[in-house]
Amino acid sequence: MKYYAKPIAKLIGRLTKLPGIGPKSAQRLAFYIMNDSDEEAEELIEAIRDVKDKIGYCDICNNLTEHERCNICSNEERNQSVICIVESPKDIVAMEKTGEYNGLYHVLHGSISPMEGVGPDDIEIKDLLSRVKEGEVEEVILATDPNVEGEATAMYIARLLNPLGITASRIAHGLPVGGDLEYADEVTLSKALEGRKQV
Amino acid sequence: MKYYAKPIAKLIGRLTKLPGIGPKSAQRLAFYIMNDSDEEAEELIEAIRDVKDKIGYCDICNNLTEHERCNICSNEERNQSVICIVESPKDIVAMEKTGEYNGLYHVLHGSISPMEGVGPDDIEIKDLLSRVKEGEVEEVILATDPNVEGEATAMYIARLLNPLGITASRIAHGLPVGGDLEYADEVTLSKALEGRKQV
Repeated sequence: MKYYAKPIAKLIGRLTKLPGIGPKSAQRLAFYIMNDSDEEAEELIEAIRDVKDKIGYCDICNNLTEHERCNICSNEERNQSVICIVESPKDIVAMEKTGEYNGLYHVLHGSISPMEGVGPDDIEIKDLLSRVKEGEVEEVILATDPNVEGEATAMYIARLLNPLGITASRIAHGLPVGGDLEYADEVTLSKALEGRKQV
Repeated sequence: MKYYAKPIAKLIGRLTKLPGIGPKSAQRLAFYIMNDSDEEAEELIEAIRDVKDKIGYCDICNNLTEHERCNICSNEERNQSVICIVESPKDIVAMEKTGEYNGLYHVLHGSISPMEGVGPDDIEIKDLLSRVKEGEVEEVILATDPNVEGEATAMYIARLLNPLGITASRIAHGLPVGGDLEYADEVTLSKALEGRKQV
């Protein structure tokens, strides 16, 4: 860092803290920002500040929003009888991009992971139960990540919901579309076999 | 972008304008910044602002600096009789990292490129000549990029310097260390042959 003027070294250091940004990318970004117009830099600063100041969690589903309720919860045209459980707001974006789902969401903000000391009380499960008990909900789709923690979380929530007479379903495991059977790992392949459907 | 709250969409849009940052990286960065502490975000903002406000060009060599003269020009222990010509301040960092050079620099801020309408008067050559004419300089090392534009720029400057009785040298072309002869392109290989040294 001694080769750079102090403010440049500082910006490079800050940028290196961001995920996926190494020293070389950080240098490239810093020089780009430096050579960019003052207005562009100011707009970047404003965008960072806005996201910190204006964004909070939806009162109902814990999605990110600039209002009390997120776009999805405040949209009355969406199917109020289905809730899809996801681990993070990013997962909502992925689900919405499919264009196949028209229900509501609930963001857990994590998954149960005894290894990392995260128990059921550390994620947003309680809110979910009170939402479900209010009445309208008929089905809960468990769309937590397809890994050990996501699986455990899905099973835990399913066991809480079944006594309430609510259908809990888990999204399917199987081969990714466009993938290659030859290169699929054994677990995925056994799950794909297990979940086979008559055609 | 319609899946995101407005401030998030704005930040992602801003980040996508940076070099090497695609929509997916931008989303990752935006979520990271959002989840980061307020202090961290504020420091990033400050670092961006500082770089825009405090950094200017060195009066002597056009390197980036927060003072009138850069660290290198104001360091009297450096060899004042050699000037290394580079295209951009980033190249100075690369040269300094070798630890092999102890002279001064001169940043052209570009290279002669008739294709892009950049002539000799559009880059910082005049300053160089007045520096050289002041006396102390004995050798000028031409370390412009090893491409057509860099080569043309080096040749142009060499022709200006030779009548002044100053040695102009060009950094060597050849095989990169750790490279593989088999995969070297023909031009590099012929340059390497041409520049062979007795051992």
